Amino acid sequence: MTLEEKLAQLYGLWAGASHDGAEVAPHQHDMDEPPTLDELLPHGLGQLTRPFGTVPVDPALGALSLMRTQERIVAANRFGIPAMAHDECLAGFAAWGATTYPVPLSWGAAFDPALVEEMARAIGHDMRSVGVHQGLAPVLDVVRDARWGRVEETIGEDPYLVGTTAVAYIKGLESAGIVATLKHFVGYSASRGGRNLAPVGMGPRERADVMLPPFEMAVRESGVRSVMHAYTDTDGVPCAADADLLTGLLRDTWGFTGTVVADYFGIAFLASLHGVAADAGEAAAAALTAGVDVELPTVKTFGAPLRDLVSSGQVPEAVVDRAVRRVLTQKEALGLLDPDWSPVPSALAHVDPRVPGATDRLRGTVSLDRPEHRDISRRLAERSVILLSNQGALPLGRPRRIALVGPQADTPTAVLGCYSFPVHVGSQHPGTPVGIELPTLREALAAEFPDSEVVTVAGSDIDTPDTSGFARAVAAASEADVVVVALGDRAGLFGRGTSGEGCDAESLALPGVQHHLLDALLDTGKPVVVTLLAGRPYALGRATHEAAAIVQAFFPGQEGAGAVAGVLGGRINPSGRLPVSVPRLAGAQPSTYLAAPLAMAGDVSSIDPTPAFGFGHGLTYTTFAWSDLDTGGDGDRTPPVATDGEVALAFTVRNTGERAGDEVVQLYLRDPVASVVQPVQRLIGYVRVALDPGRSARIGVTVPADLASFTGRDGRRVVEPGRLELRLAASSTDVRFTAAVTLTGPPRHVDHTRELHARFTVTRT
Amino acid sequence: MTLEEKLAQLYGLWAGASHDGAEVAPHQHDMDEPPTLDELLPHGLGQLTRPFGTVPVDPALGALSLMRTQERIVAANRFGIPAMAHDECLAGFAAWGATTYPVPLSWGAAFDPALVEEMARAIGHDMRSVGVHQGLAPVLDVVRDARWGRVEETIGEDPYLVGTTAVAYIKGLESAGIVATLKHFVGYSASRGGRNLAPVGMGPRERADVMLPPFEMAVRESGVRSVMHAYTDTDGVPCAADADLLTGLLRDTWGFTGTVVADYFGIAFLASLHGVAADAGEAAAAALTAGVDVELPTVKTFGAPLRDLVSSGQVPEAVVDRAVRRVLTQKEALGLLDPDWSPVPSALAHVDPRVPGATDRLRGTVSLDRPEHRDISRRLAERSVILLSNQGALPLGRPRRIALVGPQADTPTAVLGCYSFPVHVGSQHPGTPVGIELPTLREALAAEFPDSEVVTVAGSDIDTPDTSGFARAVAAASEADVVVVALGDRAGLFGRGTSGEGCDAESLALPGVQHHLLDALLDTGKPVVVTLLAGRPYALGRATHEAAAIVQAFFPGQEGAGAVAGVLGGRINPSGRLPVSVPRLAGAQPSTYLAAPLAMAGDVSSIDPTPAFGFGHGLTYTTFAWSDLDTGGDGDRTPPVATDGEVALAFTVRNTGERAGDEVVQLYLRDPVASVVQPVQRLIGYVRVALDPGRSARIGVTVPADLASFTGRDGRRVVEPGRLELRLAASSTDVRFTAAVTLTGPPRHVDHTRELHARFTVTRT
Repeated sequence: MTLEEKLAQLYGLWAGASHDGAEVAPHQHDMDEPPTLDELLPHGLGQLTRPFGTVPVDPALGALSLMRTQERIVAANRFGIPAMAHDECLAGFAAWGATTYPVPLSWGAAFDPALVEEMARAIGHDMRSVGVHQGLAPVLDVVRDARWGRVEETIGEDPYLVGTTAVAYIKGLESAGIVATLKHFVGYSASRGGRNLAPVGMGPRERADVMLPPFEMAVRESGVRSVMHAYTDTDGVPCAADADLLTGLLRDTWGFTGTVVADYFGIAFLASLHGVAADAGEAAAAALTAGVDVELPTVKTFGAPLRDLVSSGQVPEAVVDRAVRRVLTQKEALGLLDPDWSPVPSALAHVDPRVPGATDRLRGTVSLDRPEHRDISRRLAERSVILLSNQGALPLGRPRRIALVGPQADTPTAVLGCYSFPVHVGSQHPGTPVGIELPTLREALAAEFPDSEVVTVAGSDIDTPDTSGFARAVAAASEADVVVVALGDRAGLFGRGTSGEGCDAESLALPGVQHHLLDALLDTGKPVVVTLLAGRPYALGRATHEAAAIVQAFFPGQEGAGAVAGVLGGRINPSGRLPVSVPRLAGAQPSTYLAAPLAMAGDVSSIDPTPAFGFGHGLTYTTFAWSDLDTGGDGDRTPPVATDGEVALAFTVRNTGERAGDEVVQLYLRDPVASVVQPVQRLIGYVRVALDPGRSARIGVTVPADLASFTGRDGRRVVEPGRLELRLAASSTDVRFTAAVTLTGPPRHVDHTRELHARFTVTRT
Repeated sequence: MTLEEKLAQLYGLWAGASHDGAEVAPHQHDMDEPPTLDELLPHGLGQLTRPFGTVPVDPALGALSLMRTQERIVAANRFGIPAMAHDECLAGFAAWGATTYPVPLSWGAAFDPALVEEMARAIGHDMRSVGVHQGLAPVLDVVRDARWGRVEETIGEDPYLVGTTAVAYIKGLESAGIVATLKHFVGYSASRGGRNLAPVGMGPRERADVMLPPFEMAVRESGVRSVMHAYTDTDGVPCAADADLLTGLLRDTWGFTGTVVADYFGIAFLASLHGVAADAGEAAAAALTAGVDVELPTVKTFGAPLRDLVSSGQVPEAVVDRAVRRVLTQKEALGLLDPDWSPVPSALAHVDPRVPGATDRLRGTVSLDRPEHRDISRRLAERSVILLSNQGALPLGRPRRIALVGPQADTPTAVLGCYSFPVHVGSQHPGTPVGIELPTLREALAAEFPDSEVVTVAGSDIDTPDTSGFARAVAAASEADVVVVALGDRAGLFGRGTSGEGCDAESLALPGVQHHLLDALLDTGKPVVVTLLAGRPYALGRATHEAAAIVQAFFPGQEGAGAVAGVLGGRINPSGRLPVSVPRLAGAQPSTYLAAPLAMAGDVSSIDPTPAFGFGHGLTYTTFAWSDLDTGGDGDRTPPVATDGEVALAFTVRNTGERAGDEVVQLYLRDPVASVVQPVQRLIGYVRVALDPGRSARIGVTVPADLASFTGRDGRRVVEPGRLELRLAASSTDVRFTAAVTLTGPPRHVDHTRELHARFTVTRT
């Protein structure tokens, strides 16, 4: 291959897809001088960017357009290599008409990796069926500051919950033949002040013990084939130019063999935003050398600027070859280099797309929103709704009149995150139908409470200062038996929403005047059930204690309104648990449960860091009794165990209530004395247990001492001898059993093959 | 010396002083089992803690009490070694009746190290005169999050301003024979969320380039003889147990030879709060081994727990000897080991304190608040008041009626920080006279405007939700020609104030309902002059643009009200400059001017990080014209200079207004392309220039290339070749000249003997 042919495999083109199924024209998004497809094609093309996620297109015609573009690419380069096509798929394939699922924060709330895997398999199936090869998900960033706009895209504030849930997603997506992409590697969620792209000031131990574990787990366990660098710098070194990270750790230490792709425009940002490169060529050289293989979404630096540096010998061609080998190896594994590779995707196989008139016959024939997929979305939504508090108001029973108040009451997109197609793209095409059914909370309540009168009043907008609707809202509330107030976020991009990429919050007060609306409703004296459709946790002020109940949903997807209504009515027994703390104070961020004792000490500051509702918290309509802890030792004390041993515990959980429900058993580790400061506690295992009323299960858990390891002063991961506490808990703030463990023997360095999991057994009795 | 005798030199006893000049009894502060002086004395005693700063005592009788305690200590140990006595002296000697000076944030605002040195010499003189040897100041923490309660104790958010001002303070204090103490080494101000003692998550480069430089400068330039460790951990390692910091960097690299003392109870906290030690003995061993020589304020770990570990061989006695040698070397240098050492302090020399009846004759004979010291306090206050905005309202002229509104209007302590004696100690003894004159703003305005009627209304408290006073305040405003609204903080400790140690803020909104009061006053349509007596910067909302003027004072000390009134009336031409940014948003912290481009980029987040008023900003009642830049090269471009060379610039500043005034010339460096991300700009020099109307000065500045150095990827400090900008500016947001510099030659590693300063010359013409 010529140098140009090699480089062509290392960049993408943002082409989108054509409405009419024709070949595409390059998308003009954020491009100073967009190259034309004609200019690029003679050398080949590595990637096609967002064929479905750019403009609304009929799925069949989008697939046809992609197919024709691939035919053209194959025909134009002398090796006949097709491009890989990638798209977004965070909470569903970001394509017009595709099923939208709950956002990742809801996956975290579900504590149910198996269901997340099922969802991802469905997403991958849809993507693969229309010719897409790679999906830019999941997000493995661990929440460090809930003001960050992309919190909705994360799985939560605990690395173990994030890692295990992400692994399930990846396995599902990869099982459908789609290359999953870990992002953002690494640190992005810790942007200073929760401000998008702002520098990360983290030290190496926090990075190793909080931010990296989900990525390590995914590389080791999921079969993931691609990684995307984070935009941010950590302590001055941008990830895109960090060879220690992208090559040293990811490949040399963890053994990753797939591709590293750029976050969109992230290589050019090394020059334009970070100031660690003087121009596009230096930026390309820094990124490629560090280990970024593919420039996305389009070619700004890996074309002529990089070519010139390689031609002049300033960048060794071997570095180019290394990246090309990775890209072509991946294409080969996808079958793209097979002699019999066909550009016709499975979704178009029912009509030969090459015969005359196919375009018209294809239109409307491909559904990306099948009933069985909506059913997955529904089940995940139902498991992710969290009952934060309940003063006996829920389930509602059969109220005569419900006042449904709030800006989320009757808004179809209130259930969607910023990477859902209707929000991400559809919102920019207001004339286009949304493409999927999006029942509003009003509609869901009407269905759930057929015998009740539901009076709906917005009361306020999401984020304007307008309070003119308060009077009507208060009047409606005063005349109702119960008030359901639906508050939260509008997902959007770069300031168009209150949650989502570039939609960062100043504080964790509800956006706009919503907290004033809430207080006004509380002032009516009516029972107020707070219902949150939001992208991040919010401090609720007096409502924390005064609300009749609080139901938290994190953008639960297209079936989400029904899930919330089902919880309100009692059809669904809530079983979600908080993947992030709900703060007591609107300010005082950053603060997560994963904090050292001094971050949580109550008497040293006027700021009380105690959350309103802690990580892992969630109520149900039944009750669970925990009993009969067996430590294998004396009472709550296990036998001593070596630093390379493991501990076995067992206990019984019984559903002592009157209806079926799920308990989420959580296992936390506390290390009271260590050579470096440890968090008060951290999650090291969990299992969701479904129990019918009166039934019980014996839960066994085996905990390898490896799980007590942390990064020591020397930067190596170590298991230290000494005392530990294993906390068996219904949440981080509701510990049911504490087992005292003494680790014996020498400190033991553990490497990147250490055990990562506690092993649970659930025996129903 | 026996082991016990050695250890006794390594701890303090919190004895305070006696009201009646008698020997002291141990203070019970925060002590589980306080040792008695009798128990301790046979072995000797290293330190006496806060003889004056514990309870209000007459200075002469306090000195007498300290003297008698020293006599007893000397008599009781077989070597006759007296204790060192230390006290607080942040903004004045923390003793009853002592002069209170502006808090350090006002020193920063003054940009006037020479005056700070004069102040510190006066403070030191007073301390030395009554028998104190060591002062626990200055604070060299660089502000990273203005919500932190101790921001008032810092000099500001720029390391160069902090370092140069602190060096001046130390020189002044040490010139009076007082051992100065650098604190807090290092990182405390970056506590997460601005929450007191919370962990610091900083990486090593940020630490090296932002937090450490003031300490390095002080060690190299000031002759400081003591350092106090910070309470906090950084990335999991508590400073008190960090040998790399306390020994490796401080002593081995920087060459510090004095003592390292514990922050109060900080060694015990290694066990009780950090969890890096199992008990008091382990905590003592960790701290002593790392390099903490002296336990303060009293003995909790360096007594029996440490003795047992040394006796059993678990801690080498050589580590004890190392600390003892440092302590005794310092005592020797102070003359405490001289055969003719006398316990009688100079303040008591006029009456032989040993003769009968001396107690009664001494009472009231020692003043710690002399007129010449008050004059220093006044001058520093006058130079530290900052005029943030002025829509032509100031100076006020001769208004008929002034409405003086706000909780700071008539509160004597409104001008004092949390380490001033009246706040720190006096507030706990409400029956005791304050001991100094503290004119309120009401009194100062009455004096400044003898022909005006001043109507004073509090309007609200500092921090309660009570709005019942708004109506009277608005009424008074409506009937006045001008409204002066006095807002801000109440300094206090651990939640008793809104600023000060342990008084952290959730956000940078004014405490309580003060911003509502302010808005209500703006609604009157009257010209509103905002006057802030505060410990931190606050976001002022609409007042930022709607106020007729804004005058910012950071707790300006006992002469502060007159300084503010003088600015309002025009007697004083304001010349203070912001040592911290004033934010536009109340949330979105942390954020300081010392930020990378991506922290300040405007289009990537819904959060606009632009401050309301930038670092270095401050207006005057005159005008200055800057002209005639000479770069020595072509236009704005200097000749190329080697990475070990220096650049010379010259320009003229002329007072083009009608009254005398001071310009603060500020020099910022911008490094647009570097191997690690650089701040948008950083201060590398400044000079305050006083000019009569019509007069000008030619300013020369020589800038060593060393000042462009930063900590590279390898952790070493480097000067890299390439482009630089030198910005000659009236503030960080008001750049008057930009000189383009090209550094040539190889990257040059610079060590800890590098040049730290640009050299200014000011030639009046």
